[in-house]
Amino acid sequence: MSRFSVRRLAAMKPYIPGEQPQDRKYIKLNTNECPYPPSPRVLEVINNNELSSLKLYPDPEAKVLREALAEYYGVKPSQVMVGNGSDEILAFFFMAFCDEEKKVAFPDITYGFYKVFAKLFGVDALQIPLREDFSIDVKDYIGIDRNIVIANPNAPTGLYLPLEDIERILRSNPDHLVLIDEAYIDFGGRSSIELLPKYDNLLICGTFSKSRALAGARLGYSIGTPEAIEDLNKIKFSFNPYNVNRLTLLAGKAAIEDREYFEDCRAKVIATREDTARRLKSLGFELTDSKANFLFARHPKLSGEECYLKLKEGGILVRYFDEPRTRDYVRITMGTPEEMKELMTYNNIDRCIEVQ
Amino acid sequence: MSRFSVRRLAAMKPYIPGEQPQDRKYIKLNTNECPYPPSPRVLEVINNNELSSLKLYPDPEAKVLREALAEYYGVKPSQVMVGNGSDEILAFFFMAFCDEEKKVAFPDITYGFYKVFAKLFGVDALQIPLREDFSIDVKDYIGIDRNIVIANPNAPTGLYLPLEDIERILRSNPDHLVLIDEAYIDFGGRSSIELLPKYDNLLICGTFSKSRALAGARLGYSIGTPEAIEDLNKIKFSFNPYNVNRLTLLAGKAAIEDREYFEDCRAKVIATREDTARRLKSLGFELTDSKANFLFARHPKLSGEECYLKLKEGGILVRYFDEPRTRDYVRITMGTPEEMKELMTYNNIDRCIEVQ
Repeated sequence: MSRFSVRRLAAMKPYIPGEQPQDRKYIKLNTNECPYPPSPRVLEVINNNELSSLKLYPDPEAKVLREALAEYYGVKPSQVMVGNGSDEILAFFFMAFCDEEKKVAFPDITYGFYKVFAKLFGVDALQIPLREDFSIDVKDYIGIDRNIVIANPNAPTGLYLPLEDIERILRSNPDHLVLIDEAYIDFGGRSSIELLPKYDNLLICGTFSKSRALAGARLGYSIGTPEAIEDLNKIKFSFNPYNVNRLTLLAGKAAIEDREYFEDCRAKVIATREDTARRLKSLGFELTDSKANFLFARHPKLSGEECYLKLKEGGILVRYFDEPRTRDYVRITMGTPEEMKELMTYNNIDRCIEVQ
Repeated sequence: MSRFSVRRLAAMKPYIPGEQPQDRKYIKLNTNECPYPPSPRVLEVINNNELSSLKLYPDPEAKVLREALAEYYGVKPSQVMVGNGSDEILAFFFMAFCDEEKKVAFPDITYGFYKVFAKLFGVDALQIPLREDFSIDVKDYIGIDRNIVIANPNAPTGLYLPLEDIERILRSNPDHLVLIDEAYIDFGGRSSIELLPKYDNLLICGTFSKSRALAGARLGYSIGTPEAIEDLNKIKFSFNPYNVNRLTLLAGKAAIEDREYFEDCRAKVIATREDTARRLKSLGFELTDSKANFLFARHPKLSGEECYLKLKEGGILVRYFDEPRTRDYVRITMGTPEEMKELMTYNNIDRCIEVQ
């Protein structure tokens, strides 16, 4: 730390991204990326003409992309904004809607970035414990005097909260925003977007990093009432008006328009998840009922760290979270069927157990 | 505004980017972009293989790009960080180094975003008036109890502050950071980077949007002591670890390595500036001594707004700033020689004056 930094910098606890070791080639099942490349249309739209146009700033309104998103999700363009990944959208949410008075609540086990943002922006964050089985007890969120952030499906558990439960939370907190982070919604849940006409305190965010295979392009979006989106835009235009680059604007539009490719990819990922879950269970693993593109698994005979280390030795990266309630588990991103076969071979998962 | 926004949102005054009207084709001389496309190497490195790899997150450390920047600028990689445009770097500067206690100062006429950030992050900002001729009076910056931000060359005046003056400011403010924003340094000034070994309170930021023709890719950088860079990184990893996308990481490296193309581009822009300045003067325009890729010009016979409107009618976009001290001026980005010829034709600049 330099002697020039502000006092609260010392207290910040930055997010730790999944590792990207360069020492050898790994099968990467640790950051919930898509195992398939982006839509072929993405490759088509990024041509030499567009690369030459990189000399020009992107459209700060992201008009064309927002229109494509609005059409896909059945809302108005004024209900959509886009960001440099959904992490930026989440940061803007904290900046626009949370402060000393407007506090926030989220589950104790969820996407690790929520508490990083709370710390960064000095917002009081109530971390509500999940039940023993990692499910959300909706009663804990009824009429609490705070904004609420819920990842649905949740990470790293993959558990999905039905819309009826989200409605109960929305109804009982009419004066606070409920942000539903739908990073993984395409792998098995119903989007809360359909609730928007009924609840003006609902805000949704999503990402192109998972089901749209564009983690490297950085694209997130938020969908809500025009008023809430206007607030987010005010932050965006006070922070970084050109926050989404030209090529990502193009890639995002191409990806959202190629519905067939998208449906094919997510169907494959879901099939891989169901197949992998079955195989892991037959090896004695216990799994949560994940509706995401990853599985959250533990084995009675070994800790999360042991499993992680042994798989890494075998050339496979998974993620484990060294926290009291999650350290028995590993989170395994769904790769291609070939990659999952590799995971299952004697030298990998099986060996993890046998050497105990 | 929604009823959920934080109180201080109402007081924020977002930055207004240069207009991008879609009603017809304009010659765009309003946002200081480069008139030439990025290096051909940028087009080469963004190939189908890299587009397929968009499914993977970018390197949050931006290691390869930071190494290329470090080599180019003769510093260590630990002295370099990169952002989603230099706007994001500037935002991180305010977040890491400015708060209620650590205030900031900058000229009254400069890049309009500094005061937007001060408002956004609730930082007391002293706007120090430039002299009548828009030059900085260094005496105003001696031993002031604040961080200091100076765009060098300044915008929209293009005036360059010699390094001796920057040294005086650095020496007299040893306990505060002096951020030199070098967005336009490649068009005629000496970079303050050479002062880094002598002053640990110096921080520099720069952009690929101007001299590197990558405004659409969004890439900025900061260079300073390893300690200050570590502070900026702490903010980055608390805000958006994957802040620079994969293709921009590649494009940036290719652009910084193609020194020949870079030298050629900037020489052409400088030649165009000198030529255009001469022509404008012969038409009665008064100009500041711009060392940037734009000219700041006024004509005794017409206001900035009139000049802007008449040029827009003629299909040419320039920018004017409707503030007390600058509203007589227009800021004209240097285009290609052909575009500047268009600007000079009877239907454009000449006509602006004649119809008065």
